[in-house]
Amino acid sequence: MPNPSPGYSMVLRIEAPASFTSTSEITTAASGAGAQVTALDVVESHADSVIVDISCNVSNAEHRDEVLDAINALDGVAVHHISDRTFLIHLGGKIEVTPRVSLRNRDDLSRAYTPGVARVCTAIHENPEDARRLTIKRNTVAVVTDGTAVLGLGDIGPAAALPVMEGKAALFKAFAEVDAWPVCLDTTDTEEIIRTVKALAPVYGGVNLEDIAAPRCFEIEARLREELDIPVFHDDQHGTAIVTLAALYNALREVGKKVEDVKVVVSGVGAAGNAIVQLLLANGVANVIACSRHGAIHAGETYTDPHRQWLAENTNKNGFSGSLKEAVEGADVFIGVSAPNLLSGEDIATMADDAVVFAMANPDPEVDPVEAAKHAAVVATGRSDYPNQINNVLAFPGLFRGLLDAGATDITEDMLVAAAQAIADCVDEEERNPNFIVPSVFDPAVSQAVADAVETTARSHSRR
Amino acid sequence: MPNPSPGYSMVLRIEAPASFTSTSEITTAASGAGAQVTALDVVESHADSVIVDISCNVSNAEHRDEVLDAINALDGVAVHHISDRTFLIHLGGKIEVTPRVSLRNRDDLSRAYTPGVARVCTAIHENPEDARRLTIKRNTVAVVTDGTAVLGLGDIGPAAALPVMEGKAALFKAFAEVDAWPVCLDTTDTEEIIRTVKALAPVYGGVNLEDIAAPRCFEIEARLREELDIPVFHDDQHGTAIVTLAALYNALREVGKKVEDVKVVVSGVGAAGNAIVQLLLANGVANVIACSRHGAIHAGETYTDPHRQWLAENTNKNGFSGSLKEAVEGADVFIGVSAPNLLSGEDIATMADDAVVFAMANPDPEVDPVEAAKHAAVVATGRSDYPNQINNVLAFPGLFRGLLDAGATDITEDMLVAAAQAIADCVDEEERNPNFIVPSVFDPAVSQAVADAVETTARSHSRR
Repeated sequence: MPNPSPGYSMVLRIEAPASFTSTSEITTAASGAGAQVTALDVVESHADSVIVDISCNVSNAEHRDEVLDAINALDGVAVHHISDRTFLIHLGGKIEVTPRVSLRNRDDLSRAYTPGVARVCTAIHENPEDARRLTIKRNTVAVVTDGTAVLGLGDIGPAAALPVMEGKAALFKAFAEVDAWPVCLDTTDTEEIIRTVKALAPVYGGVNLEDIAAPRCFEIEARLREELDIPVFHDDQHGTAIVTLAALYNALREVGKKVEDVKVVVSGVGAAGNAIVQLLLANGVANVIACSRHGAIHAGETYTDPHRQWLAENTNKNGFSGSLKEAVEGADVFIGVSAPNLLSGEDIATMADDAVVFAMANPDPEVDPVEAAKHAAVVATGRSDYPNQINNVLAFPGLFRGLLDAGATDITEDMLVAAAQAIADCVDEEERNPNFIVPSVFDPAVSQAVADAVETTARSHSRR
Repeated sequence: MPNPSPGYSMVLRIEAPASFTSTSEITTAASGAGAQVTALDVVESHADSVIVDISCNVSNAEHRDEVLDAINALDGVAVHHISDRTFLIHLGGKIEVTPRVSLRNRDDLSRAYTPGVARVCTAIHENPEDARRLTIKRNTVAVVTDGTAVLGLGDIGPAAALPVMEGKAALFKAFAEVDAWPVCLDTTDTEEIIRTVKALAPVYGGVNLEDIAAPRCFEIEARLREELDIPVFHDDQHGTAIVTLAALYNALREVGKKVEDVKVVVSGVGAAGNAIVQLLLANGVANVIACSRHGAIHAGETYTDPHRQWLAENTNKNGFSGSLKEAVEGADVFIGVSAPNLLSGEDIATMADDAVVFAMANPDPEVDPVEAAKHAAVVATGRSDYPNQINNVLAFPGLFRGLLDAGATDITEDMLVAAAQAIADCVDEEERNPNFIVPSVFDPAVSQAVADAVETTARSHSRR
């Protein structure tokens, strides 16, 4: 069973006898069943009973039931109500649209709406560039999905993807003052997605593609980059690649290896895997082996998927063919962007000394990070409840902040590298250690550092 | 020249001699040139000069220049800088996207984003109705335009339409706590607009169509109503019709006439005109004459446009043919939703006694309201800077509040009538007078009254 997580946090309202030991018995029972008890409050006290609220983290629904059973088994104790804190904060959605202008009186209305607004419309009609000055286009990004590759959940559709897109929009604002809006499309047709995003574009200064399944996402991103005059970024590809590269810079510093010397195995040849391999190659990693669920991609085979064919021709220089488990033997670095529980601790033990393991499948990693840490020098995951979270939130807010501030019309590879370098450099030499190779997502310096690096790079392009 | 308006409000930074009479001379010069001076501040004082900020309203760009010339003509006085307050409040846009959840620490992130959010996504995937509970769909409306019929400005395109849609979104929030988002579409193709709005729909609990040219808007609205399971409302049609009907209820109370007895001339057979005529007929107005720019629509002619043909068959029972000016002779009510300056004060003088004039073309009415008021008992416009503003903001926020609260899946004519009645009834018998037939848009009771009326009507439908 995975560790209890604040992502599954409950508040239990419990009635118990009014004895001196009631509350400690409940806490002991919950903890004994594996719950992380984070708070206890007596909310009512009567002559012969007390009402107690216990906040605790559990692992999953099955674990929750075990915890409830353990508490209900106590003499005279009954759980009356269960509040799920994750669902509670989702009620009514996680973002809202708020006015930046006063609308309290007639004068306000005459300026923000009719008749005054007509002059602003006319100004933009006469000089379209003014839209970036006089409208939300200056600061607004579309977070676009078709709901086909959401977290580790797969194709759950646009409505079920919305909580992720809302969370993303909330993060954009909280971390970089970027206004972002969820665009969850009720179509999985490549051409219709392209057409729809193009139709929507006038409102936005950038497009963040999100959780769109491969290989469709490649075509959509490439075409939109070509046909739109605002930057288009597929976060699952390039956001993940940026933060992975940042983490790799610092992990290799930590173990004293160099990019040109290491053998890197990448598990997963979808959106993220492809982008990571490309950014690794661009950064001088000579020995990369990409694995699909069928094992290593190698030049000895031909592939109908053009992206796998490209990988076959450009990676795995020694022509290794075999399973993922075989590929990781002797590898210096494992990077997983694939599926849960593909490797065991024993597999990690077969890697080279001072191995680096990035197991980023969400929500369940490729290898149990606690097991991996027994054999590897550095372990990172995509989750927020372990150390070394390789979290796209380190990249995307600052990246778009920089793009919007520069008025950029596209995104280039050197902007991605600049962002990765900026993230890595936010970890000081003194604070870096095997459990701290990426800065905290709550480090306010990160998004500013990324924004500055990206804006500078973008402006140097437009000067050319 | 039209009256000065707070929609054209400037702050002038002026250098003047440090004499006792300087500021009064500047104020007198500005007022003499027709400016409404609203504020004066001395911002710097030197031995031989002062720097003064004057806030004033003017009519238009030409008038602004006259005012500047008048001030600059004063001895030793120079205008150094002009700030346009309308443009100033538009800088960077009028709305923003803000988180409703805390994102300050790792626990927050684990609930609002990964891994906790995955459970919310799964819940919606398993039970799609949960989207209305756990996402922004519960409270969010798309404000959709193609930018082809913006205010009185016509086809200015989606980017130039954005300031209006942003203003609308700001009003939705300020007046009814509805979250609204601008969708400005870079296409004028009917089928593509329909396809795009359907693709976007998962995020929204309602669609407000806005400033889409007739006749395309009719087809788009009808098809979306049929093909979507959320309410679709074309504000230029039905929003205008609701508030017009509300104003007409109270105007007729004021002049002591009955709907079944009055002759009503409607100028404009676009989106608003059609919807107004339909709602008038549904409310028992027997004598309606609709006029296009070519004069009265009548049964003696056949029309290729099916909407005009419908008007020919269902209005103008006496078969009047002639110009708009001829049509208003003897009319009790004029309702204009067409173009500026079609009628003069003399034309209004030819109407019946106690005439009612609603001149709603934006930004410039069909007849100068000051001239019209010399001959009519009740005059209303669409502008916020005259009395009796027939402003859609009285209807759309409360209407959508009621629809969202009821979880409505469509909009019916009895909801429109209920909304109109609720607006009219917000004006008490004692406060009603010829200059107060519609409540103030700042009356907080209005949107709540409309919301309650619409929610009750919508719930009575779903109970059937």
